[in-house]
This record gives sequence, structure tokens and C-alpha cells, in this order.
Amino acid sequence: MSVSIGELAVRFGCELRGDPGVAVERVATLADADAQSVAFVANPRYRAQLGATRAAVVVLDEASAAGCPCAALISANPHATFARIAAVLHPAPAGTPGVHPSAILAPGAQVDPTAHIGALCVIGAGARIGARAYIGPQCLIEDGVQVADDVRLVARVTLCRGVTVGERTVIQPGAVLGGDGFGFAQDAGRWLKVPQTGGVRVGVDVEIGSNTTIDRGAIEDTVIEEGAKLDNLIQIAHNVRIGAHTALAACVGVSGSTSIGQRCMIGGQVGIGGHLTICDDVMITGCTMVSHSVSRPGVYSGGIPLEEAHTWRRLVGRFKRLEALATRLKSLERRSGSAEDLDEDDD
Amino acid sequence: MSVSIGELAVRFGCELRGDPGVAVERVATLADADAQSVAFVANPRYRAQLGATRAAVVVLDEASAAGCPCAALISANPHATFARIAAVLHPAPAGTPGVHPSAILAPGAQVDPTAHIGALCVIGAGARIGARAYIGPQCLIEDGVQVADDVRLVARVTLCRGVTVGERTVIQPGAVLGGDGFGFAQDAGRWLKVPQTGGVRVGVDVEIGSNTTIDRGAIEDTVIEEGAKLDNLIQIAHNVRIGAHTALAACVGVSGSTSIGQRCMIGGQVGIGGHLTICDDVMITGCTMVSHSVSRPGVYSGGIPLEEAHTWRRLVGRFKRLEALATRLKSLERRSGSAEDLDEDDD
Amino acid sequence: MSVSIGELAVRFGCELRGDPGVAVERVATLADADAQSVAFVANPRYRAQLGATRAAVVVLDEASAAGCPCAALISANPHATFARIAAVLHPAPAGTPGVHPSAILAPGAQVDPTAHIGALCVIGAGARIGARAYIGPQCLIEDGVQVADDVRLVARVTLCRGVTVGERTVIQPGAVLGGDGFGFAQDAGRWLKVPQTGGVRVGVDVEIGSNTTIDRGAIEDTVIEEGAKLDNLIQIAHNVRIGAHTALAACVGVSGSTSIGQRCMIGGQVGIGGHLTICDDVMITGCTMVSHSVSRPGVYSGGIPLEEAHTWRRLVGRFKRLEALATRLKSLERRSGSAEDLDEDDD
Repeated sequence: MSVSIGELAVRFGCELRGDPGVAVERVATLADADAQSVAFVANPRYRAQLGATRAAVVVLDEASAAGCPCAALISANPHATFARIAAVLHPAPAGTPGVHPSAILAPGAQVDPTAHIGALCVIGAGARIGARAYIGPQCLIEDGVQVADDVRLVARVTLCRGVTVGERTVIQPGAVLGGDGFGFAQDAGRWLKVPQTGGVRVGVDVEIGSNTTIDRGAIEDTVIEEGAKLDNLIQIAHNVRIGAHTALAACVGVSGSTSIGQRCMIGGQVGIGGHLTICDDVMITGCTMVSHSVSRPGVYSGGIPLEEAHTWRRLVGRFKRLEALATRLKSLERRSGSAEDLDEDDD
Repeated sequence: MSVSIGELAVRFGCELRGDPGVAVERVATLADADAQSVAFVANPRYRAQLGATRAAVVVLDEASAAGCPCAALISANPHATFARIAAVLHPAPAGTPGVHPSAILAPGAQVDPTAHIGALCVIGAGARIGARAYIGPQCLIEDGVQVADDVRLVARVTLCRGVTVGERTVIQPGAVLGGDGFGFAQDAGRWLKVPQTGGVRVGVDVEIGSNTTIDRGAIEDTVIEEGAKLDNLIQIAHNVRIGAHTALAACVGVSGSTSIGQRCMIGGQVGIGGHLTICDDVMITGCTMVSHSVSRPGVYSGGIPLEEAHTWRRLVGRFKRLEALATRLKSLERRSGSAEDLDEDDD
Repeated sequence: MSVSIGELAVRFGCELRGDPGVAVERVATLADADAQSVAFVANPRYRAQLGATRAAVVVLDEASAAGCPCAALISANPHATFARIAAVLHPAPAGTPGVHPSAILAPGAQVDPTAHIGALCVIGAGARIGARAYIGPQCLIEDGVQVADDVRLVARVTLCRGVTVGERTVIQPGAVLGGDGFGFAQDAGRWLKVPQTGGVRVGVDVEIGSNTTIDRGAIEDTVIEEGAKLDNLIQIAHNVRIGAHTALAACVGVSGSTSIGQRCMIGGQVGIGGHLTICDDVMITGCTMVSHSVSRPGVYSGGIPLEEAHTWRRLVGRFKRLEALATRLKSLERRSGSAEDLDEDDD
């Protein structure tokens, strides 16, 4: 795909400084770009690399433009503009409309004629695949599943019974939507499975990463609202709700019936307990344990950065003796007669 | 499926208060139930919703029964009784007996005629599939694997060579049993693979969640005992033993050769080191690091709940200076002559 | 497979104490070995079991040899020698050369005639499969992917466009290489997908565990260097580099653009932030949060071992009040006139 930078300027509303007839074919980093490449600067700390780039054109903001040694596409949001240009130059592989002869469609599966069904897919009775949907190879779409228009299942995605997926949503390989929730009743020292009868509702413009799992609801549905972005290896338990435009980094676990608000950002490996409510606009940094609800927008943390092992062991030892340390302090306070301090720490 | 509540009372030994001829068709929450629904109250905090329910019947205990505005099925264990009723009203999809024409069976694969083998399954030589087993689409069952009667592999389950699965066990999509354990010998600065020659033995009535991985043993087998329940995205390393009726929540990792006892409950994202022994009846709360064995039943923890980021940073700073703080305290104690405290903290 | 211990001694350069004509057929633990088994002692704490073994031969070092009740193969590195012997006695299942009739090869897929392609594999246009490669059942190898000689994809491995895999690399079931990186630009309160145009380059002699995910690069490639070993359920984000001979235990997450050096050892469930650099020869113990770069070889930690829940709750309470405790200490110091301590802790 080759596009003139003049056309890019017009399509994406950028000011162009340079020759509009220059053609570009691909995106590149500032360092690796050549005369057919578009690069970008979204973060000021990369400005230092700008002067040496050999790119055809760089997408950047007004403040960075002065240092640009080549053509410039000036944008108030260079990262977003770059994303749109990259989507033009590197479109996702389009499947040819139609069903691969090796795919297994049950009687009653409804596939839009413009949809692409890849090799060795299995599509169950009553499932519906929308217009222009791309169903990559080896996907499994069980009975009755609804896949809306323009959905993209990259490959080997599993959608179990009771799952619905909204328009333009993208799901990466290995993701499993609609596996049973982890519901068991105690019964005389044994666990008795509680049938999981809910489904999974995924909104429009959602992205779900590789090998992420989203369980069906116990009775009602598990819900991923529009625009939410889930990275790889995330666990979403039954009856969780992820709010619109919320992003979860990899390896996050969200326990059952927890609700996360809109526009939240959850860092990698965060663990979130069950039956909690996280309000809108909460950011939680990586490796944090969330064991209570959060009702005020803001940034929250809970991880302690590493130390050299020897130092760390001493710190852990101190931590484990905090009770004794507090007792000694209280004892000293008593001797020194600073009685006003005693109440504060009484327990 | 429609069943009279009179029949449910008889089958599950409940006292019925109400018209035995009323028919129900599905389970529902108290809030969403209608005149064809069964709801339940297992937790007293849901009693508040009981008065407004429009359910046909509610499963509850004697203590909650007074507030029930409709028919009541009274049970000493409402959650377990509800689970049994749900299994009647919402049976797991039954596969028709027989092998889907697209499945690939190696010569010598033994499939019971009452078993269901779904589309695009691969079953290896010498594998044995028991009576009434349900093998969902796209499962892989390698050579010699033993799958007992009434096992349910929901879909896309991988059972590698050397795996055996006991009666009635359920495995969710994407689970991998029998991948190689992580065994390497150091050899002149390189890692040399140690062939993993053990298998995986899974007992009866086990449940294994989506995308969970259970490695084959290095020499002896990895073992999951009867009734154990494993949630999604769990890692079970080689030669681990999980005791009977023990439940592991999602994202738990158990390192090699560790043995977990019976009736334990392990919270989400718990990390358990290698070569440890956890005794029976241990509960470990979520996000805990387990780096030593546990020899006494009880509840154990190791996670610190989140704080606002600014507060958390100050706490981490204090933590990192605990050594200095302890030194200062000791110095004050010396001045004040409280010599008896010095020994306790000497290191 | 049956081999004489004399032949093993010659092939692997061991001193043999015993009858070279004795034949062995399998490996076993010291405790379970019989007269056809090879066992080994690499760790002195297993020497206690040595005296009672019924093995045909034990691989061990000179220091352990005195206590050996049977034939001995003496090696400076018994673990590595045992690994080599195990590979002789228990070779990985060899596939017959050729393509299973159920596999789907796109026109233009190049498969070496000595390679094995298992049942229901999908191989895309322009993909290349090298000599003696073993591609187990249900693997997906997308267009243009390069799989070098002697690679082993155990089963159900997904290699998306832009992935290359070096000689002798082994990938376990469920692993996904080349899923999209998690790249989104903020755009008026919504996330806009940034097309991920890089690939994944995996070196020679790498091992990748079950259900591990390695994302394609955003623009440049994600790189796993030669000899690196990745356990199960690991997340490698876009543009990460894992150095040669580095080993990552299960459930580790590495965020985008981070570089890990050579010969590192990363424990289970370690979480590593983005844009960091970990130098060569770093060991990080399990459950550690890595939020800054590490520039000095050594051992690092960050996890706090569990306690009984009651004790833990008190410690967490003390931790949360560390700020107050430090304030009280400072106040006492002021009274006692130990002014030299004040500066050290000023903040």
C-alpha cells in the first residue's frame, strides 16, 4: 500500500510541512525509518532521535515540529493520528468472503455472505455471524452464539454457548469466552457443581487478548462494555462487569461479581477480589492486591519494588517484628511521659 | 425442561410450603425471577431481596422461610439443593452418541459407543474414551490417554500422552494437561532439557478451568486427587500433588514437587514455591506468596491491600527505611537505659 | 529402548563402576527404580535414599559414589548426564515424515519432505517448515511464518504472521506467538487501536511452555534469544527482548519494551514493568514486583512470606501506620535531644 503524505494530511486533518507528493508505504521507528516510512513522536523524550531520522515524514505535535529534519504531519494527537495512518498502510489481513471448505457448519448456522470463515472452524446450530466478520482458522463458535458485523476473531478463539460479541470487537488467539464460572456448593465435605446458566455479553469495539478467559455468568451474564480493552492471560470470573473504555493489562485476575467502572486503567498482575465495586476513572498500578471497593477516582497502588535479596531479607525480618518494635516504642514513650501518643496507637 | 416443585421437594428431600403442582422451568436471581423461576437464598444478606421476589419458589433454610412471599423449598443446605435443582432444569448439553465424521481417530483408538466425539477432535492410538463421555469439538487426546466414563471435555481440551482422567471429571476449554514440565540441567552455561517422562493422573469428580495448565511429571506423575476443583489460568508444575476436595481459585501457580493437602482452599493469584508441603485444611487468602511449608491447619495470608498512590509511596518509603528506624529506636533505648529490650531485637 | 550401561559410559564420558553389559530401559527415581532403571543423585540431600535403591545403575558424582549399592556412572555433572541418558531412553515421539491428510496447506506453503505435519494443522501461504520439524496435531502456522529445522511444536501451537522460530526450539500446547501487542492511543476518551506491525523472532534451542503468550512487536520485533527457556502461562508483551539462556518460571509477566539480559533466572509470578532494562546474570525470586531497571548482577527479591491470617492482619495494620510510628519516634528523639538522627529521616 502506497499513499501520498498529502492525502494523509487531508484524511486525518493534519497540517503538512513538506512535499505532498511524497509517497509512504510503511510505518517505522525514528531510528529505522527510511525514505518510504512514516515515523512519529508522541513522547517528548524521543525528540532527541528526531534530528537523525531518515523517515519520509514524521507525525508530531507543533512543539516538536521545529526539530524535524524531513516532512512533518502536525497533529494535536500524534499517537492517534499515527494509529490511523498505520491502519491505512498496514490493514489487518482481509479474509475472502465465504466459508473455507474444511469448516464445519451445523445446520441452522447463519453466516452472512460477506463474512470470512477460516479453515477448520466449527460453527454451531443457531449461531449467527455478521457482515464482514473475519473468523480466523480453527475458531469454535458454539450453538446460538451471536457475532456482530465487522468482528475479528484472529484465530483459534472459543466462544461457548450464550456468548454475544458486539460490532468491531477483536479477539486474539486462544481466548476462551463462556467457559463455566467457578461455582460450587459445599455439600458434606465435597464440592457440588452449581450449573452456570448465564452468558457473556461483549460490547462493541472491545479487544480481548491471547489466552484470556471470560467465564459465563452463574445466573445472569458476565458483561464487558463497549470500548474495553483486555490484554493477554486475564481472568474475568462469572458475573463481573468491566465498564466502557476501561483497559486491563496482562495477567490481571478479577474475581466473581466484581464491577469495574468506566475509563479505569488496571496495571499488570493486579488481583481484584470478589463482590467489589471499583468506581469510574480509577487507575491501579501493577501488582496491586485489591481487597476492598474503591469509591473515589484516583490512582491506587499496592506493590513494593524489589531490593537486593540480602537487603530485602532484613526488611522482611523487620516487617515481621513490627509488632515488637511498636511495643518497644510505646514502652519508651511511657517512660518519657509522652502520654498523648499512647491513645493514637492503642489496639 | 419443566418440573413441578412437588417433584423437586421429593427428589431433594425438602419440606415444601406451597402448591406442589406449580411448575418451574429455570433458575433465576431473586430480583429477576418470574412465575416460572426457582431462586434461592443461601446468604442471610440477600434476605432483604426475598420479600420482593416474583419467583415461583425459593430454596432457603428454615431461618429465612418466614419472609418468603411465595412457595418455599426448605433445605438445610439451600446452596447445594439449588445446585441440584439447577442441574435438573439446565442439564449440560448432551452430545449424541457417536463420532462426528470430521473427527480423526487413529487406528486403535477405543471409543465407547455411548460416548460423544465432537467435530474436529483428534484421538490417538491406544487412547480409550469411556461410556457416556462427552468430548466437545476440537479436543486433542493423544496416544494412550485414558478418559473414564462420564467425563466431560467441554471443547478444545488438550490431553497429551500419559494423561488419565477419572470418572465425571469436567475440563473447560483451552486446558492443557501433560505438557512437558519445566526441567533443565545446567550444562556449561546452557540449559539442557531433561526429558519429562511422567504423566498426569486426574481423579474422579475433578473440575479444571479454562486455559489451566497441568504439566506431566519429570519421572513420576503429577496428581490431582478426587473432587479437587481448579479454576482458570492455573499453573500446576511437574510432580505436584493436589489433595482431594481442595479448591484453587484462578491464576494460582504451584511450583514443582509441592504437595497440597485435602480440603484446602487457595485464593486467587497465590504463588506457591517448589518442594513444599501444605497440610490438610489450610485456607490461603488471595495474592499470598507461599515460600515455606504449612504444617498446621488454619487461615494464612500475605497480601497488603491497596492505598491511594501517594499514601502508598510514603509507606513504601518508610518500609524501605525500617532498618534505620529500628536502629534509631535501639539508640534511644540505650540512652534511656532500657537494656532488657536490646536482646529481643539483636541481629 | 534398551541400552547397555557400558555404552552409556562411553557415549557420555562417564567412569563406570560395574558390569558394562547390564542393560537399562528407562529412568526412575531412586525409590522406584528397578533392575532395568537408571536413577541419579544430583543433590546431596538425596544421598540418604541412595543406599536403598534397587536401580541397575545410578548417575552421580565422585563424592556420592561411595554409598552406591549398585553400578555407578560417575559424572562431574550428574544432572546433565542423566538428562542425556533420559533422552536416549525416552526419545520424544517421532512423527512419520509427511503431511497428515486432514491438514490444510495453503498453496505456496513449503514443507520439507522430512518434516511431520500432524492431523488438522493449518499452514498458510508462504510458510516454510524445515527439515525434521515435528508439527503436532491442530497447530496453526499462518502465512509467511518460518519454522527452522528440527523444531518441535508439540500440539495446538499458534504461530501468527511474522513469526520466525529457530532450530531445535520446542513449543508446548496452547502457546500463542504473534498475537497483537496491547497498543492503543487515547483519542477523545476512547482507545484507538495502534496496528501492531512487528513480528516475533525466536532463536535456536528455545523452549516455550503451555499457554504462554508472546505478542508481536508494535513496529520492531519481539525477540527471544537462543537457549532461553519460558515456562507456562507467561506473558511477553510487544518489543520485549529476552536474553540468551535466560529462564523464566511460570506466570511471569513482562511488560512492553523491557529488555532482560542473558543468563537471568526469573522466578514464578514475577511482574516486570515496561521500558526497563535488566542486565545479564540477574536472579529474581518468585512473586517480586520489578518496577525499576536492574543494572548490577545479583539476586533480587520482593515477596513477603505468608503468616497466619490473624498475625498478618496485625502486621498489615502496623505497616499502614508506619508513618505515625516514625513521627512518634522522631518526637521522642527531639525530647531526648538526639538531634543527629533527625536529618537522616527528614522528608
